[in-house]
Amino acid sequence: MAGSRPRTNGSVAHRIIADHLVEGSMEPGEEIGLRIDQTLTQDATGTLVMQELEAIGLDRVRTEVSVQYVDHNILQTDERNAEDHAFLRSAARRFGVWYSKPGNGVSHPLHMQHFGVPGKTLAGSDSHTCAAGSLGMFAVGTGGVEVAMAMAGHPLRITMPEIWGVRLTGELPDWVSAKDVVLEMLRRHGVKGAVNRVIEYHGPGLASLTAMDRHVIANMGAELGATTSVFPADEAVRDFLRSEGRQDAFRAVTADRDVRYDLVEEIDLSGLEPLIARPTSPGNVVPVREVAGARCDQAVIGSSANPGLRDFAMAAAMVTGRQTAPGVSFDVNPTSRDTLQDLTRSGAMFELIAAGARIHQAGCLGCIGMGQAPATGRNSLRTFPRNFPGRSGTEDDAVWLCSPETATASALTGAITDPRDWAASNGFARPSVSALDREPADNAMLEPPLPPEEASRVELDRGPGISALPDFDPLPDAMDVPVLLKAGDDVSTDEISPAGARALPYRSNIPKLADFTFTRIDPGYPRLAAKQRDIGGSSGHVVVGGDNYGQGSSREHAALTPRYLGLRVVIAKSYARIHWQNLANFGVLALEFDDPSDYDHIQQGDELHFEGLHAALAPDAEPGLVVRNTTRHQSYEVRHRLPEHRRATVRAGGAIAALAAEVSGGTAGG
Amino acid sequence: MAGSRPRTNGSVAHRIIADHLVEGSMEPGEEIGLRIDQTLTQDATGTLVMQELEAIGLDRVRTEVSVQYVDHNILQTDERNAEDHAFLRSAARRFGVWYSKPGNGVSHPLHMQHFGVPGKTLAGSDSHTCAAGSLGMFAVGTGGVEVAMAMAGHPLRITMPEIWGVRLTGELPDWVSAKDVVLEMLRRHGVKGAVNRVIEYHGPGLASLTAMDRHVIANMGAELGATTSVFPADEAVRDFLRSEGRQDAFRAVTADRDVRYDLVEEIDLSGLEPLIARPTSPGNVVPVREVAGARCDQAVIGSSANPGLRDFAMAAAMVTGRQTAPGVSFDVNPTSRDTLQDLTRSGAMFELIAAGARIHQAGCLGCIGMGQAPATGRNSLRTFPRNFPGRSGTEDDAVWLCSPETATASALTGAITDPRDWAASNGFARPSVSALDREPADNAMLEPPLPPEEASRVELDRGPGISALPDFDPLPDAMDVPVLLKAGDDVSTDEISPAGARALPYRSNIPKLADFTFTRIDPGYPRLAAKQRDIGGSSGHVVVGGDNYGQGSSREHAALTPRYLGLRVVIAKSYARIHWQNLANFGVLALEFDDPSDYDHIQQGDELHFEGLHAALAPDAEPGLVVRNTTRHQSYEVRHRLPEHRRATVRAGGAIAALAAEVSGGTAGG
Repeated sequence: MAGSRPRTNGSVAHRIIADHLVEGSMEPGEEIGLRIDQTLTQDATGTLVMQELEAIGLDRVRTEVSVQYVDHNILQTDERNAEDHAFLRSAARRFGVWYSKPGNGVSHPLHMQHFGVPGKTLAGSDSHTCAAGSLGMFAVGTGGVEVAMAMAGHPLRITMPEIWGVRLTGELPDWVSAKDVVLEMLRRHGVKGAVNRVIEYHGPGLASLTAMDRHVIANMGAELGATTSVFPADEAVRDFLRSEGRQDAFRAVTADRDVRYDLVEEIDLSGLEPLIARPTSPGNVVPVREVAGARCDQAVIGSSANPGLRDFAMAAAMVTGRQTAPGVSFDVNPTSRDTLQDLTRSGAMFELIAAGARIHQAGCLGCIGMGQAPATGRNSLRTFPRNFPGRSGTEDDAVWLCSPETATASALTGAITDPRDWAASNGFARPSVSALDREPADNAMLEPPLPPEEASRVELDRGPGISALPDFDPLPDAMDVPVLLKAGDDVSTDEISPAGARALPYRSNIPKLADFTFTRIDPGYPRLAAKQRDIGGSSGHVVVGGDNYGQGSSREHAALTPRYLGLRVVIAKSYARIHWQNLANFGVLALEFDDPSDYDHIQQGDELHFEGLHAALAPDAEPGLVVRNTTRHQSYEVRHRLPEHRRATVRAGGAIAALAAEVSGGTAGG
Repeated sequence: MAGSRPRTNGSVAHRIIADHLVEGSMEPGEEIGLRIDQTLTQDATGTLVMQELEAIGLDRVRTEVSVQYVDHNILQTDERNAEDHAFLRSAARRFGVWYSKPGNGVSHPLHMQHFGVPGKTLAGSDSHTCAAGSLGMFAVGTGGVEVAMAMAGHPLRITMPEIWGVRLTGELPDWVSAKDVVLEMLRRHGVKGAVNRVIEYHGPGLASLTAMDRHVIANMGAELGATTSVFPADEAVRDFLRSEGRQDAFRAVTADRDVRYDLVEEIDLSGLEPLIARPTSPGNVVPVREVAGARCDQAVIGSSANPGLRDFAMAAAMVTGRQTAPGVSFDVNPTSRDTLQDLTRSGAMFELIAAGARIHQAGCLGCIGMGQAPATGRNSLRTFPRNFPGRSGTEDDAVWLCSPETATASALTGAITDPRDWAASNGFARPSVSALDREPADNAMLEPPLPPEEASRVELDRGPGISALPDFDPLPDAMDVPVLLKAGDDVSTDEISPAGARALPYRSNIPKLADFTFTRIDPGYPRLAAKQRDIGGSSGHVVVGGDNYGQGSSREHAALTPRYLGLRVVIAKSYARIHWQNLANFGVLALEFDDPSDYDHIQQGDELHFEGLHAALAPDAEPGLVVRNTTRHQSYEVRHRLPEHRRATVRAGGAIAALAAEVSGGTAGG
């Protein structure tokens, strides 16, 4: 633990950071290390985390709580999903981790309900981990290797963020809900608006937002690029924990009266209207009325971006006694077993079914491209957090993001519809859905960690589909390597390593998964890259990117699979935070142009010459380098932004290689 | 209609056949033509049927009722499922067909509930169409081309079956249910036991079997190889139709007192015990107690083989207040929207969810390999009708077939368990589930046919994934072609053209789907066959098979895709009925060995010489041929069993080619 208490600006975020600071100073832009109290992993990223724990040689996790959820890969179109589940369950039992069975539901709301504690830190291998900020936690989505290290007791390193105070005033009008609040943030600031920032919501408007409403808002902080979002732990949080039978977990965490945020913003809730993000970015937000009347072929309710009972109950109240339009598929993704139970008990489920809803098992499903894919070019309205191209599973999709109210009104009419207009033309008053009787979530589908001695005897259940982690060689000091891909701005990890039903089942089989790398941008990339890699010697290749390279999902496969195919260096204008870390963790050198206009000079196919890489990665070295383009006879000044501890990692060939060395030195998990 | 009323043996089957006979005589083994009152198509086979109707140039179906269901391909892991749904809906509107939306449920129980009428004939492009025999219908599962022709007003041609009277006496003991009755039939007679037979159940034991119990038994007649199964339309059927609000549809159809069945059998229901089919055939039936104690990793309730409310309610009653075992995935496939509503209303759904069930959308799902695939080699107990290898989606699966009682008891204990033993050790009396309140199924997710004028203006909604039907050339008179595959006995259509999540989305794209042909038996087949086909001239190849070639699912893709790859002739010891028809419909000549031991003499890779094919397919020609094996200098006597009208079809290159000729001659759909 750090010695003297660091000075804070009085914000909730600073309070929690200061409580957990073990390295660095709380100066925005500096890298800091945080003690991590809790971790969450989901199955799509968790198999790799568990393989990493195994590679590290860890005996038992050193966190207060670590939970392995199964929510992503649950369609089971072949044996691989079920085999992963068995592997994850055995690994959870082996390493002292809670295990949430398939069918129990989506990690983020479940974690909040079962394990959320105000003032604690949470690291999760899922980009929407930030949703736990709704309870006054400091919750960061990050790469699997980072989470594995946190489980092993290492601090989580992040760039100290600026704290962005967003003051909420007023109260939401009828037919406007929490989703519209975060869509308003996206409308104002776009998908890069909160990079290296924590969004801290405060002000009198909070009083009318329940903890689950705040979850909706905190969750999609990920889409703004935020390090995380934070709400105070106030009476709404106390009420929530009480409703879950966990009132003892409550402690107030609030900002000082004289809090001094680094940046400030204000949203008058009473001035908001129903909003919708057009295809194919969460940043394309417009008022629903601006696009009303366009045909709607599908509406989907659910996901971690609208997980609350109220979200489903609102939809049920709207459809009661009505039928969804004939050509519309109305899909309901229940958040969790608890939600399903509550909806069944209250009769809301009955009304949804009667109106023509297709009820899916509890989990992420369509939100991660596992099922419910729409027809090419047909409008699908979803209460999900993301609509990057192809994420739905449909190559040329047209996915819109909106509130449950907007999605349901549109399902009923068969056209994109502002719920206020639907209500007016149906003489329908906004239903009150807060009075639903709610039972505390029970633990029946959560297996607690085994006692240490019993755990130490558990064998990992490794089905035929679980491959070994590949070995990666150290970074050469000099290289002549071609640019195999030049990408534009805002390339998402979905475009680098696609999710969806075709690719996801291979996530534990790196060679197979690598065949999907970058294929949304260039179908020829995997073949070309593998050919180049197999030339031998210090072969490999470079990818050039624009701004915000690697935005979106935290999946580390987006670093691992191109690395497996020989990616050694990325040069981009700027990076999304989690992917930048993942690149370092898998031994890929992430460089930035000193002069962004140099981006325009490099073309796909150019041969680049690198030298002096080892010197540039020495602990105290200047991070600048000159890259020579031998095809065009140009030179570019670039720099890495790697802090000291990450330099050794990249040079060693990645964190697994570095940790393996640590294990063989006998200091594993220390 | 045929002139004088044919003489019948007084059975229900004969009564309905006689009422609908338009060609042939009711002599077992003779081909007869039946007027078809109703048809059903599902989406996996229906896209092709609708493409065929389009190719025929049909304006409107000529049946009393035709229904297009969507129940197979509903996971939507990419755009193709949703595009098929849109295509099918538009085709249903175009051709005067009812359309059942995705989410409405499984065709067979839905058809029984909404459209079943005693004494009517039903042709369906799904092998379990026979389930409608539960209401006293004569219901035949057949190839899509046959159904398309029936929709166009052509008679359905079948081989006149023997009528097998199975007399039921006694009453089922506690914990033994309808599924065990049909498993007993399979235990006694195996998967070929009822080929060219109609199983007609009768006797005092019927009194205690509801119409839905009878559905369970009639449904799995398909697994016995039966032409169909038939129950009388008696008071139980009247009760069922009344419970659906369709009492007007009832008419009694019963056997004469002096009925003379061609074969007879007796089952004393009171002597039965819980049974289970071991992997990997429905014919491998043993008492549950014989295999009790083996680990159970998954249990699945649902499908057309156990679709009744009682089946789910029984499971719910057993799990109430209990948890399924930690390592077990307990999956519930609701049959239909109606079933979901009833279960939700009664509270049974709540109990299933509370016990850890994963609730899936209504439809076939895991039963057709669309999701819920088990881990390699891990025991999965299912209330499904089939467990052919790989059908679950897992290459090396271990799927067992049993009653809901057995599956649920095993889910609770984590080991294969006789429900009687589970009940005894839990002091649990068999619950009464018959008193559940049951609402008539409503039509909200069923779109009725459009009026003719409106229908004629509907444009087919053809997404980018719907390919055109390939053109097939006529059968050459002489050929020298290699044997590219030699298969054993009981090759299923699942092995010829696999279902499952990888292959099924391509069912409207023949070239893509063909890449999966026979890959369960020989992964190299599609490549080799395509190479051989592309040599040009009268190239192509032969497949050699054993007994019961083409058993299982009725999918015509199992004839269409090998034909696309150049299959011209199959020589086998014997054929499953539907696949034999499908081969003819796609222009593949199906030959049988006169001497079955010749099967042993041919080897994969041998070159065979055929000649005089056209003469052998002339209307009155003898069906015998001599095939020369030029590799081994041998000759084999073989014969086709094609009746006159099918000879022209095979010679023309298949039914589509023949129908296209008919259209151009101006007699389409006559």
